[in-house]
Amino acid sequence: MKSWIEIEADSDFSMENIPFGIGLIQGNGKCICTRIGDTVIDLAGMARLGYFDHLGFKVSDFEKPVLNDFISKGKKSASRIRTIIQECFMESNSSDSDMALIKQMALHNASEIQMLMPVLVGDYTDFYSSIEHATNVGMMFRDPANALLPNWRHIPVGYHGRASSIVVSGAEIHRPKGQIKPATSEFPVFSPTMQLDFELETAFVIGKENPLGDSISTAEAEEYIFGMVLFNDLSARDIQSWEYVPLGPFLSKNFASVISPWIVTLDALEPFRCNGPGQQPEVLPYLQFDGERNFDINLQVRIKPENKEETIVSKSNFKYMYWNMSQQLAHHTINGCNMRVGDLCGSGTISGPDAESYGSMLELTWKGTKPIAMPDGSERKFINDNDTVIMRGFGKKDGIRVGFGEANVKILPVK
Amino acid sequence: MKSWIEIEADSDFSMENIPFGIGLIQGNGKCICTRIGDTVIDLAGMARLGYFDHLGFKVSDFEKPVLNDFISKGKKSASRIRTIIQECFMESNSSDSDMALIKQMALHNASEIQMLMPVLVGDYTDFYSSIEHATNVGMMFRDPANALLPNWRHIPVGYHGRASSIVVSGAEIHRPKGQIKPATSEFPVFSPTMQLDFELETAFVIGKENPLGDSISTAEAEEYIFGMVLFNDLSARDIQSWEYVPLGPFLSKNFASVISPWIVTLDALEPFRCNGPGQQPEVLPYLQFDGERNFDINLQVRIKPENKEETIVSKSNFKYMYWNMSQQLAHHTINGCNMRVGDLCGSGTISGPDAESYGSMLELTWKGTKPIAMPDGSERKFINDNDTVIMRGFGKKDGIRVGFGEANVKILPVK
Repeated sequence: MKSWIEIEADSDFSMENIPFGIGLIQGNGKCICTRIGDTVIDLAGMARLGYFDHLGFKVSDFEKPVLNDFISKGKKSASRIRTIIQECFMESNSSDSDMALIKQMALHNASEIQMLMPVLVGDYTDFYSSIEHATNVGMMFRDPANALLPNWRHIPVGYHGRASSIVVSGAEIHRPKGQIKPATSEFPVFSPTMQLDFELETAFVIGKENPLGDSISTAEAEEYIFGMVLFNDLSARDIQSWEYVPLGPFLSKNFASVISPWIVTLDALEPFRCNGPGQQPEVLPYLQFDGERNFDINLQVRIKPENKEETIVSKSNFKYMYWNMSQQLAHHTINGCNMRVGDLCGSGTISGPDAESYGSMLELTWKGTKPIAMPDGSERKFINDNDTVIMRGFGKKDGIRVGFGEANVKILPVK
Repeated sequence: MKSWIEIEADSDFSMENIPFGIGLIQGNGKCICTRIGDTVIDLAGMARLGYFDHLGFKVSDFEKPVLNDFISKGKKSASRIRTIIQECFMESNSSDSDMALIKQMALHNASEIQMLMPVLVGDYTDFYSSIEHATNVGMMFRDPANALLPNWRHIPVGYHGRASSIVVSGAEIHRPKGQIKPATSEFPVFSPTMQLDFELETAFVIGKENPLGDSISTAEAEEYIFGMVLFNDLSARDIQSWEYVPLGPFLSKNFASVISPWIVTLDALEPFRCNGPGQQPEVLPYLQFDGERNFDINLQVRIKPENKEETIVSKSNFKYMYWNMSQQLAHHTINGCNMRVGDLCGSGTISGPDAESYGSMLELTWKGTKPIAMPDGSERKFINDNDTVIMRGFGKKDGIRVGFGEANVKILPVK
């Protein structure tokens, strides 16, 4: 699809994408927006021009600080809005006077708009669904001969994370401090983390609630998934290894997690469906599913030292996931756990089979034993102060490209 | 303090208590309430009578579905409201006409008012701070000779729980189902839990936020704690033991947790301050504290089979906690994790030194090996279908009694 708005060939924000986010629009406050190329489209502005009147939407439906209410209206509503936007911005579909009005009322240069947290996250869950990641971690910290724990191929292992400290791309986070237990010391010490890491993840956004006590089947699961974002589950490895038994990671993770600002709908990701890895042994019936439930989404992590160029440190793909999102959601609710609109479910670190596709510094440098050489001559075992970690992701097939933009975070020295 | 409202001698809701909750008031909707004896006081009604005018409160400040906004006004505001209520309901402090007006506008029989979730919980954290509980669990599931893990005496171990499935006392919850791995089987099976348990806990409610990146010291911690509730962290032990490595409990807990509806302020609990157990080895400086930070609060669990009488199965006390709330909060934020008003922090199961003071069926029946005899001739290893689990708690000292009411939940058969 071509648009009368300029779209560069490698833009994540094609006419096929039309994601949703919250932008801070000067003079209008927080509004629901979408993006085509480098142009942010204020949907409140489009509503003022009457484009959504026939759907029963009011201007105030788009003047919102978060997307939760909008998402609650249902995936069909969002789909209709996307279609209207596509029609309106299609090349030669609008008259010169319409275009002039739209430009005046609703279009902004992306570089001038601050993007905010897209949703109020009620609960955030993180899974652990990449077999390569779980195997790598098991080899490093437990038994190389039995790297995967006995439950791993039966359960999409997951745990609850902290919702309050999820921040949107562009955040600056101070290096966290906490308890670390040096191997040579009898007691723990108090210190800034010396092993600050990223975890390359995606997260899906819940679009529909289920009542407490009801389960969501794998067949129904995608009705409950509104869309996806990139997710950087920042982790302090030295704090984690001391604190995590027996109840799991806590302060090693909850100082900050970073998401990309644009929620890319499942509709937009439809062209990139694919099969996932085979699952052996066969999973229990409630985890079985029909059809292609993985998505071929290229993922990338770059590190940018201050005033230096970016370096790609990881190239992975969402298709490597052993457990797919439908299975994760079916498992999460099999006991009747209730989901709410805006809840986030992280994939867990997405590592691929090759060493360059590992999704964390822990794996890429094999616990710091194989540092990554940077173009400026320095090296990285983990993340340094003043490094910016940049995650990108996109699907590309048959000339269609749909991407997520960036989830980036700068690490400041300890406060 | 005596009141012109009748208060039975063993009431949890003395004039010294004056807790806060949300009641559903016929004709007025959801309102902030307090309680004296068996009388619920609608604070919106009191506001209509002008009792809070001089504090700058409007009637609409009390017509709220949750307490979050009210709590955000600060502990001093809540304290002033409590003082006004105490003055107004003090014996012989009100004229006959005042009393008649108050009765008409603001008083309700507690049995006629449905109490609702008192707060919108942003994040819920559960600690693991009873040394007796951690030791018992370690003896049963790990190594009896080294029951406490190496980090336990250094860290108030905690993890994130599910906020969406926290329900208020009076809830009915279906027995959850999930994956269980029988010892005799190579693979897990799908089954209703056969080891449904309670965990006797309290939780504190956050009353003030800290910005992301800032820590709260033990000296400041109580400024951030608005009050406390009883907390039943329902647990499916067979699901838990299969799923919990390496990332902690998940579906074994997130099907429901139950809180008591009245938030008892720290002010009201002041008379019950006491010292906690000594901590050896010495904790790191950020966990050290001054003064009495534990509270002498009697706790009790009863099981009530359907149409049968209640049986006390556990008698414990909040004073047994090894790690106090100030230490928990200082630890939780030492990495800069941000708290929001309404967040809940659970104590973890509160077990005492004696076998009758254990805070879970797991410990009371020692993994089901020592069933509890019930008066009707049946026995309990864990919780049966149609059992109601009732938790109660109160402090009592120098003629003052301040209590929490009940956190109860009925277990229905699997759905």
